[in-house]
Amino acid sequence: MKILVTGGAGFLGSRLIQALLQPEALDLLPGHGRIVSLDLAPYPYEDPRVESVIGDIADPACLARLVDAETTVVYHLAAVVSGQAEADFDLGMRVNLDATRVLLEACRQRAKAPILVFASSLAVFGGELPDKVPEDLAPLPQSSYGAQKAMAELLVGDYSRKGYVDGRVCRLPTISVRPGKPNAAASSFASGIIREPLAGLPSNCPVPLETRLWLSSPDTVIANLLHAARLDGQALGLRRTLNLPGISVRVGQMLDSLERLAGLEARARVGDEPDPRIERIVCSWPGDFDIRRPLQLGFGVDRDFDAIVAAHQRFMKTQ
Amino acid sequence: MKILVTGGAGFLGSRLIQALLQPEALDLLPGHGRIVSLDLAPYPYEDPRVESVIGDIADPACLARLVDAETTVVYHLAAVVSGQAEADFDLGMRVNLDATRVLLEACRQRAKAPILVFASSLAVFGGELPDKVPEDLAPLPQSSYGAQKAMAELLVGDYSRKGYVDGRVCRLPTISVRPGKPNAAASSFASGIIREPLAGLPSNCPVPLETRLWLSSPDTVIANLLHAARLDGQALGLRRTLNLPGISVRVGQMLDSLERLAGLEARARVGDEPDPRIERIVCSWPGDFDIRRPLQLGFGVDRDFDAIVAAHQRFMKTQ
Ligand SMILES: NC(=O)c1ccc[n+]([C@@H]2O[C@H](COP(=O)([O-])OP(=O)(O)OC[C@H]3O[C@@H](n4cnc5c(N)ncnc54)[C@H](O)[C@@H]3O)[C@@H](O)[C@H]2O)c1
Ligand SMILES: NC(=O)c1ccc[n+]([C@@H]2O[C@H](COP(=O)([O-])OP(=O)(O)OC[C@H]3O[C@@H](n4cnc5c(N)ncnc54)[C@H](O)[C@@H]3O)[C@@H](O)[C@H]2O)c1
Repeated sequence: MKILVTGGAGFLGSRLIQALLQPEALDLLPGHGRIVSLDLAPYPYEDPRVESVIGDIADPACLARLVDAETTVVYHLAAVVSGQAEADFDLGMRVNLDATRVLLEACRQRAKAPILVFASSLAVFGGELPDKVPEDLAPLPQSSYGAQKAMAELLVGDYSRKGYVDGRVCRLPTISVRPGKPNAAASSFASGIIREPLAGLPSNCPVPLETRLWLSSPDTVIANLLHAARLDGQALGLRRTLNLPGISVRVGQMLDSLERLAGLEARARVGDEPDPRIERIVCSWPGDFDIRRPLQLGFGVDRDFDAIVAAHQRFMKTQ
Repeated sequence: MKILVTGGAGFLGSRLIQALLQPEALDLLPGHGRIVSLDLAPYPYEDPRVESVIGDIADPACLARLVDAETTVVYHLAAVVSGQAEADFDLGMRVNLDATRVLLEACRQRAKAPILVFASSLAVFGGELPDKVPEDLAPLPQSSYGAQKAMAELLVGDYSRKGYVDGRVCRLPTISVRPGKPNAAASSFASGIIREPLAGLPSNCPVPLETRLWLSSPDTVIANLLHAARLDGQALGLRRTLNLPGISVRVGQMLDSLERLAGLEARARVGDEPDPRIERIVCSWPGDFDIRRPLQLGFGVDRDFDAIVAAHQRFMKTQ
């Protein structure tokens, strides 16, 4: 038994692999099971059960080799993030769209269709949005990243309908607080405005304080990604795509949480220089979703943003 | 000035080219303008202003040559129809998805983005459908054809947002009455049950009489495709995709029209042997749409199904 994680060296991928190695995930990965991380970078930890393959997800030969008869579950997390996909259209198309198809083709060659959990994003939405996004709202991406994710969702849907794969698409909320460094995602600030001040560093908030964000903590997202693989595919019906639960928070409320938990001094480290490029992308995303179906299906959700900040503070102490 | 029509040898493509050659279309194709038909088959008529290129739409070199600095408008109609795309998944992906991307790439290379009118289909929809489909309903394709069209729509949308092309996506209703022979489209019967009896031939209705269809006559669709190229791209806002107007008719009502206009004898030529494969596909499509926006934008619509049958009867007399 084998689980393939594309993007296994990334932020979510490496955390997901660590979670899959815990005893609580024995149902997904029994004791004798192995994990293969496929990424341009090496899986950052040592574990005898994890094989770190350095390779390009868009390479058909590589995927044909890695998705084999042992492969029961594939987590597809490798991606070029939003800011980068907007700046380099061709790279985004190749990694976010073409590689997904290459991966699906590799799954299709298997006698038994593997379970595939694909990480999509709320960036598929845009335009005039209802206050709360219903399950059947049409994607209207305002970034190439969003368009590529939306096309990949359709691919996973059709390959699943055909029985080539047993797909589950999770549209992830924006993740906050993401540890580490800022990245090229347009939403990078949604972690930066908490993470940097807590570490005593300056940070900038490039969007208006009224901006609503749809957020999830890393722990909740990882738990939900595990749950997605455990679901009975039939329970999803025709709609293989789920808006994962999140909480709807205004940027101003995030900074209030920061101040409540870390004081005025921390709050004062956050500047307010607007960045129209980031504002255009982020403000085109929805700030709230109808999550009745994912909750019924057993996905989890964070309590509130204070809890998210507190969890990050606990995490900092462990480092 | 040059207009490229992919699928120019097909049913709609050849009619569209004839319409573009009329004096009423001089605004789209001035007297000195030319039309290039790109199709696996030759354009079926002779006209000094039409160049018939026999080639594969998925061939990048061919498209790079045909989309040149003179090309002001591209009509993208070449496709593998629903029944065939379901039977041959790879062919459908290549022609309906990959070739659309090849075409968009060719447009992207031009200094001035050409207008692109892309023929999509109501087959992008499926699953539980509201009685009347709103503009912002999410596609949930129940056929590979529908999935491929939905992905191509997203491509056209993102290439338009990037300014690589000035795209307009028209989701065509099912066309009835389509002259000629039955084809591999799952909706082929929607013409057959009128066309064959009017010609004295037997026909079969493979779906229940209550089945609602969303229909347009060929003439109305052609007029709407001309209109799509005339529109100011700005008027479309962020939403480049339009559900073209149609009329919502039950199959039983279609047969009533047949009987009204051609007598009981004609009606009696239509059998009722169910075909679950066709029923599964066709009954997953919506039967009615909210068309306020396309009507406001100036698109046209047929009066009722009697008018459509009468128009086909007039057409038969000209043959
Ligand atoms: N973090 C978020 O807020 C968020 C929100 C919505 C969706 N997502 C999605 O979740 C997934 C994981 O996100 P993340 O935050 O861990 O991103 P990340 O950038 O940390 O990880 C992505 C990984 O993919 C790898 N990768 C990129 N191109 C590759 C290629 N051609 N071949 C092999 N590997 C390649 C990178 O090396 C990286 O390790 C992505 O699909 C992302 O789009 C994340
Ligand atoms: N007729 C309808 O009811 C209807 C409904 C919805 C959408 N549409 C869409 O409208 C468009 C035209 O439909 P139609 O009814 O005229 O179909 P058609 O089958 O008569 O015409 C399609 C044409 O595309 C050509 N073609 C196929 N593969 C090709 C390739 N690889 N390279 C070059 N040419 C290729 C075929 O030779 C054919 O002439 C299609 O995109 C179709 O999906 C039609």
